[in-house]
Amino acid sequence: MLKPRKVPKWSEYAPPRGTWRSVFKYGSPYEFKHPSLRWVEMIKREFGMKDEDFMSRKDEGLGEVTLERPVALDPVHRERIESIVGRRNVAADAYSRVKYAAGKTTEEIMELRKGVVRACADLVVHPRSKQDVKEIVRYCSEHRIPLSTYGGGTSVTRGLGPEEGGVVLVLSTHMNKVLGVSELNQTARVQAGILGPALEEALRRAPELYHTSHRYTCGHFPQSFEYSSVGGWIVTLGSGQASSYYGDAYHLVLGQEYVTPAGTFVTRDFPAEASGPKINDIFKGSEGAFGVLVEATLRIFRYMPENTRRFSFMFPSWEAGLDACREISQGEFGMPAIFRISDPEETDRGLKLYGMPSFVDSLLRRRGMRPMERCLFIGTSEGQRDFARNVERQVKRICSSYGAVSLTGYAAKKWEHTRFKEPYMREDLMDFGVLIDTLETSVTWENIKKVHNEVRRYITSRPKTMCMAHASHFYPQGTNLYFIFLARMDDIEEYREFHRGIVDAIVAAGGSVSHHHGVGRLFRPWLRSYLGEGQLQVFRTLKRHFDPAWILNRGVLVDEG
Amino acid sequence: MLKPRKVPKWSEYAPPRGTWRSVFKYGSPYEFKHPSLRWVEMIKREFGMKDEDFMSRKDEGLGEVTLERPVALDPVHRERIESIVGRRNVAADAYSRVKYAAGKTTEEIMELRKGVVRACADLVVHPRSKQDVKEIVRYCSEHRIPLSTYGGGTSVTRGLGPEEGGVVLVLSTHMNKVLGVSELNQTARVQAGILGPALEEALRRAPELYHTSHRYTCGHFPQSFEYSSVGGWIVTLGSGQASSYYGDAYHLVLGQEYVTPAGTFVTRDFPAEASGPKINDIFKGSEGAFGVLVEATLRIFRYMPENTRRFSFMFPSWEAGLDACREISQGEFGMPAIFRISDPEETDRGLKLYGMPSFVDSLLRRRGMRPMERCLFIGTSEGQRDFARNVERQVKRICSSYGAVSLTGYAAKKWEHTRFKEPYMREDLMDFGVLIDTLETSVTWENIKKVHNEVRRYITSRPKTMCMAHASHFYPQGTNLYFIFLARMDDIEEYREFHRGIVDAIVAAGGSVSHHHGVGRLFRPWLRSYLGEGQLQVFRTLKRHFDPAWILNRGVLVDEG
Repeated sequence: MLKPRKVPKWSEYAPPRGTWRSVFKYGSPYEFKHPSLRWVEMIKREFGMKDEDFMSRKDEGLGEVTLERPVALDPVHRERIESIVGRRNVAADAYSRVKYAAGKTTEEIMELRKGVVRACADLVVHPRSKQDVKEIVRYCSEHRIPLSTYGGGTSVTRGLGPEEGGVVLVLSTHMNKVLGVSELNQTARVQAGILGPALEEALRRAPELYHTSHRYTCGHFPQSFEYSSVGGWIVTLGSGQASSYYGDAYHLVLGQEYVTPAGTFVTRDFPAEASGPKINDIFKGSEGAFGVLVEATLRIFRYMPENTRRFSFMFPSWEAGLDACREISQGEFGMPAIFRISDPEETDRGLKLYGMPSFVDSLLRRRGMRPMERCLFIGTSEGQRDFARNVERQVKRICSSYGAVSLTGYAAKKWEHTRFKEPYMREDLMDFGVLIDTLETSVTWENIKKVHNEVRRYITSRPKTMCMAHASHFYPQGTNLYFIFLARMDDIEEYREFHRGIVDAIVAAGGSVSHHHGVGRLFRPWLRSYLGEGQLQVFRTLKRHFDPAWILNRGVLVDEG
Repeated sequence: MLKPRKVPKWSEYAPPRGTWRSVFKYGSPYEFKHPSLRWVEMIKREFGMKDEDFMSRKDEGLGEVTLERPVALDPVHRERIESIVGRRNVAADAYSRVKYAAGKTTEEIMELRKGVVRACADLVVHPRSKQDVKEIVRYCSEHRIPLSTYGGGTSVTRGLGPEEGGVVLVLSTHMNKVLGVSELNQTARVQAGILGPALEEALRRAPELYHTSHRYTCGHFPQSFEYSSVGGWIVTLGSGQASSYYGDAYHLVLGQEYVTPAGTFVTRDFPAEASGPKINDIFKGSEGAFGVLVEATLRIFRYMPENTRRFSFMFPSWEAGLDACREISQGEFGMPAIFRISDPEETDRGLKLYGMPSFVDSLLRRRGMRPMERCLFIGTSEGQRDFARNVERQVKRICSSYGAVSLTGYAAKKWEHTRFKEPYMREDLMDFGVLIDTLETSVTWENIKKVHNEVRRYITSRPKTMCMAHASHFYPQGTNLYFIFLARMDDIEEYREFHRGIVDAIVAAGGSVSHHHGVGRLFRPWLRSYLGEGQLQVFRTLKRHFDPAWILNRGVLVDEG
């Protein structure tokens, strides 16, 4: 018989229009992915929570967005900007101002749940073309009007969100087209505001749309794929889930058109050249602080799903798993596309979340693979058929040599099924005062264990806190660590302090400030100690060069020093 | 019976010490590679030359180096610099000043043959350590003493060679060590002045020297490999002959230590991160204009020569060969390491230079492959055994589908034999008034034919001039073109004008200023039209930031505007 009282009262409806929740809810208003009941049981047990704690949702944000901040921008400026983009592409209502001020950091969502808006623009502007962007950038620079850029809205670094006042440019409304596909050059030219699915669909349908002889893929599938923009991928140096094979956004962008107050820069589409330091590189990772990325030429890849091989393994230990991953990464046979190993805690909790047939568990235990020691590895290989097969064969050979047991392609397939859906759980848990948040960093093979140990030690030193981690972007010279923590926590100040402590632990252990989310405003305080004052001065010099009035994405990446 | 009068009187002896020839002769004083007699016949026929024209060498440069330029540097500065590096590491004699002012451009060699030195430093300094470099950079910046850097001396862009006066730092004398090999991270830390062979030997002997379990290779083998420095590879964005697999210098350098008047920059060794624009990238290609590269962390690769596969093919036409190369580059099975296709004229003249058994020629003709139409392709595949085999298999499949005939691994092997030796022919031919020079550019697959046609048209419009070309650095998105021209020409002004015309033709047809040699002083005049004034202004801003006294490698990359 069903025991309905055990099921948490998850929110099941699209947030009503105009509400705070409609601003902060991840992804589609109509989509949900609830934690499994086994997970809820785990959380209850570990955090000392009861069924009752999951009965009434808190700070759901169902009230209507209101804003007690009159538009401070001089109406003259608004008129001028309306004359550039057309009146219908300018908004100054409270809802628009709040919506386009918000990214997806935990901190912001905690604030929005309580109706707190730290800062927002006065004017939301939806440019129709790069010409619009050029005119607005010029105008705002002349009149020293703060100007920030919004693509898909999925930043987790407070990279989005203006400082108070000024204008926010929303690129995803109109500037979201594929401009062309060159089959010869194997490139696509796109507007920066295009989101992942539109790009990928155009590439897969290239024969119909662009008369190519093959289908293509963009190769870039971050967890935010469905809602993030190509421009965002580039300016934050993002990585997709298949980056180990296809490369990071850093590698995928061949050329850019970048509008700055100091003029528009169009870089060439050569895959390599030796004509001085590459301006294309200087703009990568500049997070809108130097200008507005309006177009990019991307490398694209043949879409050949028929060649994909899926595999998964269980390793007896984290050490064995990491050694195998390193040997694979350095094996000179090409890289897996999806390539991911979970640490023991993530493995264990992940199996609870997604379920594992009990006979598999018995089998693994008989092979000496114990919970909280064993590590799950999943992967795919892609590309030309024999290439993909050889990658699979070599991966199997190496994994076996480190004592791993093959779990077939099942776990990889199961993971793919929900690869873009996990962020949906965040709202569910937060409704009941449980916070789930992530941080990520770069590591070398030499320091991965130290970073993993020390960050875990910090996170788990807090009572009622779980810490899971995985590595999922591999290179011969290192990888990343992606930490996920769950905590019963709803005080924003406590959250901020805890978060700062984690970043401190990452940087102290020798990790980077970020592997693939960028710096934004959230991580900027660590740049000085991480990069050193000398490198920050270079950023400032470039900032002053491109943006002398210092109007662009103020507060992101670098301060005035 | 021998007919000795037909053999040109090639220079056969090491140039005497102290002579101009000892400065400009390529490579080892004791090594020579003479053009084959068939080549001499070809040159005689096409340039209307006679045996007598190859009997007496002209402008051999056998006189002693003299210099009518007193050292202008205040002795106080010399004393101070001597106190930093030690007196034995400072020289101001004419020979040293000339030697360390010269690179290997044709223009410079034409000048040196006549005893002309356009500019040289007052003081040649051999720093012992990065600490020495820091102190000298600081001192020279404070006192506005021009400072340039010399690595291996193989620049072909006038990237070496000081403007008049000041100090030249020679990094290859002492700062030429491998500092360490990390087998875990698969990296090597080196001093920037190390030359190719020392690096490669240390990596191959890593088990003995660094207690690694595997042997390694640097993967970077430019034609100048034996005499160029790692620092030079990086600051000019060089490419090796196996770059299609291993990557260009741009990809090989993971981290750098870079001494500038604005301080020393040490970048991290992460293979990827998202902590803002990468300072590591800004220094790549900066050609010593921003500072002095003193150390670098390089990606290294497993050395597995037992897995190397060699292959070569003859294509019926340039078009068929390029189409096949594109399909290979975009085939998603990994890339060949050596990967090179010669255009019809290079194929034909190359076969004359190296010889082809006549039965092969007959066979090819029977297959419809005519001289001045057919194109030679050579390649190797490296890496893990099955990977390398699959690359070979796929290359064969694609080449066959474009009508190519396999020539087995013979041609590739033969090419490897002289891969670093061709520059030696330059002196031989110049001794008899025949000039051989090269230019190179990046192309996309869309514009390769246009660039090839138009540059060839320009070069061959001059009577008594041959033009050969090949592509040898491949990417899915394009490749390079490397033009070699031979001309009977000994007037330097005529040469300069002709050279300018070629670069004009390259840039007008849509090629880059350089694919892998850099800009230097020779190509700087094209940067404005090629990159645009806006990008030059960025270079100037960076230059002023790092080198406010504008003392470093003056005249290279960017002028003061």
